[in-house]
Formats: sequence, C-alpha cells, structure tokens
Amino acid sequence: MNDYLDFVRQLADAAAAAAMPHFRTRLDVENKEQGAYDPVTIADRSAERAMRELIRARYPEHGIVGEEEGIHQGSSPYHWVLDPVDGTRAFICGLPLWGTLIALNDGTRPVVGAMNQPFTREFYAGTPDGAWLNGEPLRTRPCASLASARVMTTAPEILRVPAQRAAWDALAAEAQLVRFGADCYAYCMLAAGHIDAVVEAGLKPFDIQALIPIIEGAGGVVTSWDGGDAQQGGTVLACGDRALHAQLVERLRHAA
Amino acid sequence: MNDYLDFVRQLADAAAAAAMPHFRTRLDVENKEQGAYDPVTIADRSAERAMRELIRARYPEHGIVGEEEGIHQGSSPYHWVLDPVDGTRAFICGLPLWGTLIALNDGTRPVVGAMNQPFTREFYAGTPDGAWLNGEPLRTRPCASLASARVMTTAPEILRVPAQRAAWDALAAEAQLVRFGADCYAYCMLAAGHIDAVVEAGLKPFDIQALIPIIEGAGGVVTSWDGGDAQQGGTVLACGDRALHAQLVERLRHAA
Repeated sequence: MNDYLDFVRQLADAAAAAAMPHFRTRLDVENKEQGAYDPVTIADRSAERAMRELIRARYPEHGIVGEEEGIHQGSSPYHWVLDPVDGTRAFICGLPLWGTLIALNDGTRPVVGAMNQPFTREFYAGTPDGAWLNGEPLRTRPCASLASARVMTTAPEILRVPAQRAAWDALAAEAQLVRFGADCYAYCMLAAGHIDAVVEAGLKPFDIQALIPIIEGAGGVVTSWDGGDAQQGGTVLACGDRALHAQLVERLRHAA
Repeated sequence: MNDYLDFVRQLADAAAAAAMPHFRTRLDVENKEQGAYDPVTIADRSAERAMRELIRARYPEHGIVGEEEGIHQGSSPYHWVLDPVDGTRAFICGLPLWGTLIALNDGTRPVVGAMNQPFTREFYAGTPDGAWLNGEPLRTRPCASLASARVMTTAPEILRVPAQRAAWDALAAEAQLVRFGADCYAYCMLAAGHIDAVVEAGLKPFDIQALIPIIEGAGGVVTSWDGGDAQQGGTVLACGDRALHAQLVERLRHAA
C-alpha cells in the first residue's frame, strides 16, 4: 500500500505541475455542456493527461477512469479514478479550494485516495491504515446532533431534484452552521475534524472515490443518502460521527 | 502613505500571530447573538486586542472602530477600522478564506486598506496609488455584461430582506457563474481580476472599509446597491468593470 501511496504523490505532483501555471491566469474557459455552464480549462486537460501517462508507464495493466478523457479499460480489476481539477469553478474564480483527486480502486472499492491542493500545499491521503494531511494523522471530531453540527454542500444548485433540495433545506435549517462552496475541500475539512457533515447529490464516481479512503481512514463514514455504497456517486452523505450519520440517513433516505 | 502601509503590515502580522495558533484547533466557539448564530472565538478577540495595542502606542490620537471591542474615540479625524477575523465561520470550519481586515479612514473615507490571509500567505493592500498582492500590482478584468460575469456573495442567507433576496436571485439566474462562501476573499479575487462582481447586504463598516482601497486601487468600483458610498456597510456592490457596475446598479437600486 505504501508503494501505491508514493505513486499517488507522484501523480499529484505531476498534476500540480500541469495545472498550477494556469491558476490565477486569464485562461480560456470552455463550456462542456449545452444549456448549462460546465467549465473546463487547459489546466483540467493537461493535468489529467500528465497523470494518465505516468499510470500507463508504471501500471500498464491498470484501468483509468478520468473526468476529461473517459474510461481506459485495463486487464486488471485495479483501476485509477481521477479528477484532475475538482472544483473547476473555484479554480477559475482564483479560490484555493479546488483539488486534484486520485483514487486507486481494487475492483470492489477505492483502497487508496488523495486530494492535493498545490496552492496551499496540502496533500490529504487515506488508506485502510489511516488518513493524513502532509503526513500528520487526521481524525474526525465527535458531534452527535444536527443542532451542533457544521454542515457543508458545494452549492444549493447541485441539489436539482426537488425532494433532495427540500430535504437539504430542512436539514440546513436545523444545523448549527451551514457553509457553501468547497467541493472536495469540504470532505477534507470533515476528515480533519473541523466540520461534521457534507451533503451532496449528482456526484460522479471521480468526484467522491478519492475522498472515501480519506474520510474512512480518519474515522468518518461516507455513504449514499440511504446508507448504501457511495463510490458510484449520486447522492453522498459524509459524517465525522457515526451517530450523526445514522440520524441523517433517516432524514435523507426518502430522497436518495 | 507608505508609512501607513508599513504600519498596516505590522498590524496584520500581529493579528496573524494572535489568530493563527487557534486556526484548525478544537477551539471554543461562543455565540454573540441570541436567536441566531454569530460565532466569535479567542482568535477574533486576541487578534483585535493585538492591533489595538499597536495603534494606541503608535498613533494615540487616532480613533479605533473594531468588530469585537467597539469604538474608541480619538482626538484626530483619522481612525482605524478593524475586523480581526472576517469570515469567522470559514475560520471555525478550517477554510482558508477568512482574513484580517484593516482600514485607515481619514475622517471622510478609507485611504489605506488591507486584507491579510496568513495561512495562504496573501497580503492584499490598496492605497490611492494602486493595489497589490504581496507587492505585485492588481488589476480588475474587463467584463461588460452579466451573462459573462462571475458573481459571488457570501451566502444566500445574508440577503435577509425579501426584495434584496429577489433581486439577487434574478441577477444570479443571468450570471455566467455564481459562487458562495468567501467573505472578504471574494473582494480580493475581484481586485485580482478573477471574478467580476460581489453583491452583498447587511454588511458592517468593518466588513467593507478595508476592501474599498484594494478594489479602487485595482481599477474597480464599490458602492451601495444604489450607487452611493459603501463605507458605512449595508448593501454593497463591487464590480471590476464600470460598465457592469452601471448595469447592476440599475437592477439593484430599488432594493438598496
């Protein structure tokens, strides 16, 4: 596992070298989606390309799933799940809350995960052995009730299904503190014990797989809104405290 | 003016030395307001105290207005307007988007302003001579239409007046990109040319005065929603491009 973790660090550095020269420059932003705004930049594309090249050279039998270039089928069940710039909106707004997400999935679940933020020089990583920020162990904090919980979601708009939005609104009204706008960074704040829950919907596998080993390695739990496996994305509920997670599943499962 | 700017840097460093030991620790959070959540921590209080001590020693005739300790009337019209931790919610969530805000007001307007973010090591400053990030000049970017604008506000909840919330919602629906959750950091992203507008309401003088010289020094414009003076807080509209500002004032003035 340590070999994989070292290699993940290499991937993160390669992605950072490709993306950082474009951060806070006046770069061209393309829209990937008709009728909506789904921005992508040369930073996203070149960071993913840099990681794919390293993986093909080192683990040619492994598959690759990436946000920008899709699926490369490998001969091994092991595959890499990559989001070169999670939080492209933050990136183009100059905000240092985006991250490069890297997961290694053994064919059943993500076993190594990392989030790298090169502007703030923060490398969050998780394995079955634990979770770390720049090598320092991470632990979630206890928080057994919603009334004392700090809760985050990237934006109200990502909760597009009316029942999901209503479930979020009810939950947000009872939380101690609600904060928007952090993408992958929110899950790392949860792993580090600064916030208590992240509630999102409409996620893709590459938005969440890298974060699962970090959260679980720090003592937290991450599932779909009905308590199922979160690795395929969709609705995602992450909590630092299992008791809070059980309560929130009861409140969210009908909208999962 | 350069003497004042050097002193502002000393104030920022003193506030950082007081606040940073508490960032990302499990600190006690007090609630200042009954019936709502208005958090304050020892970081806010000790950072403001550190700045007040330096000001009293160096400029005993100057007044001081600070978020945590209120108004100290000076014998000079010059006074300092301080928010030791703007974005206390970001601070307690571990997010590096809070900042120490420092303004020197000459009795008519803020003439020197700074925002310091010690975790990311970013010092934004503005004077009548210009605006800088860590000494590098800042310029806003051209953006003449809302359809191509990146727009931020701290949270939908700060727009408490129904007409203000409705005006925001209409504007957000037409913007190219909307982003929440950045407090003072959003205004600095505007000064640096990464985003195009910040639209807020319910601000206090210490939330905005330090940012006015930064935005104006970078070529932007900041007023109340009806185009008036923003230094007393209330509704605030900041734009990087004057043409966009004129359009948004027309859309917001009825709710100012």
